[in-house]
Amino acid sequence: MKDFKVTPWEVSGEVDYEKLIKEFGTSKIDAKLKKRLESACGGELHPMLRRDFFFSHRDLNLILNDYEKGNGFFLYTGRKPSKGMHIGHLVPLVLTKWLQDKFKTNLYIEITDDEGFLHKKEYAWKDVQQAAHENILDIMAVGFDPQKTFIFKDSEYIRNAYPLLMKAARKITNSTVKAVFGFTDSTNIGLSLYPAYQTLPTFFEKKRCLIPCAIDQDPYWRIQRDIAEGLGYHKTAAVHCKFIPPLQGVQGKMSSSAGPETAIYLTDDENTVKKKINKYAFSGGRATVEEHRKLGGNPDIDVPYQWLSILFEPDDEKLKTINRDYRAGKILTGELKGMLIEKVNEFLVEHRKRKEKMEKEMELFMYKGKLAKSMWEKSYE
Amino acid sequence: MKDFKVTPWEVSGEVDYEKLIKEFGTSKIDAKLKKRLESACGGELHPMLRRDFFFSHRDLNLILNDYEKGNGFFLYTGRKPSKGMHIGHLVPLVLTKWLQDKFKTNLYIEITDDEGFLHKKEYAWKDVQQAAHENILDIMAVGFDPQKTFIFKDSEYIRNAYPLLMKAARKITNSTVKAVFGFTDSTNIGLSLYPAYQTLPTFFEKKRCLIPCAIDQDPYWRIQRDIAEGLGYHKTAAVHCKFIPPLQGVQGKMSSSAGPETAIYLTDDENTVKKKINKYAFSGGRATVEEHRKLGGNPDIDVPYQWLSILFEPDDEKLKTINRDYRAGKILTGELKGMLIEKVNEFLVEHRKRKEKMEKEMELFMYKGKLAKSMWEKSYE
Repeated sequence: MKDFKVTPWEVSGEVDYEKLIKEFGTSKIDAKLKKRLESACGGELHPMLRRDFFFSHRDLNLILNDYEKGNGFFLYTGRKPSKGMHIGHLVPLVLTKWLQDKFKTNLYIEITDDEGFLHKKEYAWKDVQQAAHENILDIMAVGFDPQKTFIFKDSEYIRNAYPLLMKAARKITNSTVKAVFGFTDSTNIGLSLYPAYQTLPTFFEKKRCLIPCAIDQDPYWRIQRDIAEGLGYHKTAAVHCKFIPPLQGVQGKMSSSAGPETAIYLTDDENTVKKKINKYAFSGGRATVEEHRKLGGNPDIDVPYQWLSILFEPDDEKLKTINRDYRAGKILTGELKGMLIEKVNEFLVEHRKRKEKMEKEMELFMYKGKLAKSMWEKSYE
Repeated sequence: MKDFKVTPWEVSGEVDYEKLIKEFGTSKIDAKLKKRLESACGGELHPMLRRDFFFSHRDLNLILNDYEKGNGFFLYTGRKPSKGMHIGHLVPLVLTKWLQDKFKTNLYIEITDDEGFLHKKEYAWKDVQQAAHENILDIMAVGFDPQKTFIFKDSEYIRNAYPLLMKAARKITNSTVKAVFGFTDSTNIGLSLYPAYQTLPTFFEKKRCLIPCAIDQDPYWRIQRDIAEGLGYHKTAAVHCKFIPPLQGVQGKMSSSAGPETAIYLTDDENTVKKKINKYAFSGGRATVEEHRKLGGNPDIDVPYQWLSILFEPDDEKLKTINRDYRAGKILTGELKGMLIEKVNEFLVEHRKRKEKMEKEMELFMYKGKLAKSMWEKSYE
């Protein structure tokens, strides 16, 4: 058994996801629950659910109970602004969009510009605001419903949310955020508070909240689950995904801090994508063409195959064929990389096309859409 | 030498103020500085300065330099809302009013409703808001200039101040607030942040800030002095007063937490004042009238005399006569208490009369006066 580590601030090693479910005390999204979800949404599940990329949950069964009873639920996700968003950042957003489409729910997207500023001593306030602006455009380009989605920056919505923030903050001790976020006495006092802000969207409605996120984020929501009922709200539910591997291999997770060559950024042009994948993507193929033809490749450790499976090849039949042919040595490493390059570039070209149209939609998502407008009229005293 | 303790959260024993100046590293307001202050304000000093009740300072000399150069300065004070304000709470406000009158300065008064809420688990948000409303009326009744004074609640001004709050918070560690505020890991994360908010008014202008406060509050401002220059502002100046003694004796300070019989509240009616002073005020008089006539009383440990000296007998000559006659046994304990009762009731009746008229002034101080209006138009990004 190899060693691995999963905390909200570090993911390393080859993760044993079954073991993680036990460690974290979450539940597996099993066949029965998938069946229930399928009949609730009235159609095929999203590939990330079909293929168990979203593999773990808390209280998804209660979400489905509520939905079946007609009480509904709502979605929440968020983002700390950063200069470049990569493909890994889109993963939970893609499932979130699918859930919104299928269940017609409200969605809250928190942009933690305060957290971004507090995290980096060298950032100016306006740097973070610029990054937030870019990130919001990328998020909107995923295709959410502008009347049912409220995207807000912490620094702006604070005018409404402050009393609620104080109510949550009063229930969370420094011991807790030290344990959960890895804070120490050297951490600045701004960072100490923001875990409270991060829980707030789960209290925006009296319904149950569902958070799609990577499994390493689960500890954050345990804080919410500790305080929610004392504040008169539901414990939040969550669905957890695995990590999209960095180009270099199926260990750890795609991350900006690991260097630009480990990730594909949403701004990478076609040539950059081609070069990065050809040069850096870890292959499960053999050392020579001859050997590969004879012995076949291993898709389980092949990053291009994994990426196709997670995000870029929605067709199960096609994916199965690729898997079979790669194992059989019929598809060469270079060919598999070629397939991924084409898919990624197609995806990014489309994404950037949508993003270009988003500048004029921003007002709807942030201030003027049906949900956004009602949120600015809300008070929490 | 008796033991004493002065921290922002505990004052006990008989305080040696000379020693405290050395311990805290502040400076004495000496005869030379008082002379300078006198000529700057163009008249007699306030009794609390003349009589060395305000006895210590930081950078008051720099304030005077700035004033003499025509650069000016501004004033800042604040209050955590509480259900009852007592006479001790008014002391720094009275000097603040005098300073504003003499130097025609802007004044910022921070009402830390967030802190009040975070401090008491049993408070509802609206309880704190009610207390804040009452406290603001009492503060306004001290008689500040409504065009040059901005009174704000943290929970309201947060909409403007948040970026500035984050800038200050990023520079303050948990270690610092643990040391200065006595916080521990069991402290809630809201309280951990508020020391940053408390520094903000010192950054409202590029001029130098002067804070009139009791000496136990000095450690709070050391945090400001650590971070101010890194943010492009001046280290704040301060003038520190001694503690107004509780009725029971000249040890410690008047405090609501010590029980209602130790303090005179601004809402105490004439009969309550009379009863409290007659029953509880510690006297420096003798056990019997005969003994007192023969040996005389000791005004140095006599609470009624101390209160007259601090707040209720502005006339130096009269005070001197009282002192002399009390020492000589000409004034009896009951007579001295009688003088104080009269003065206190006069003061409170006047105060409450002014307070009644304040409801309609509130909008000026908080939103519409010249300074208030400009503060709501300000942004700190």
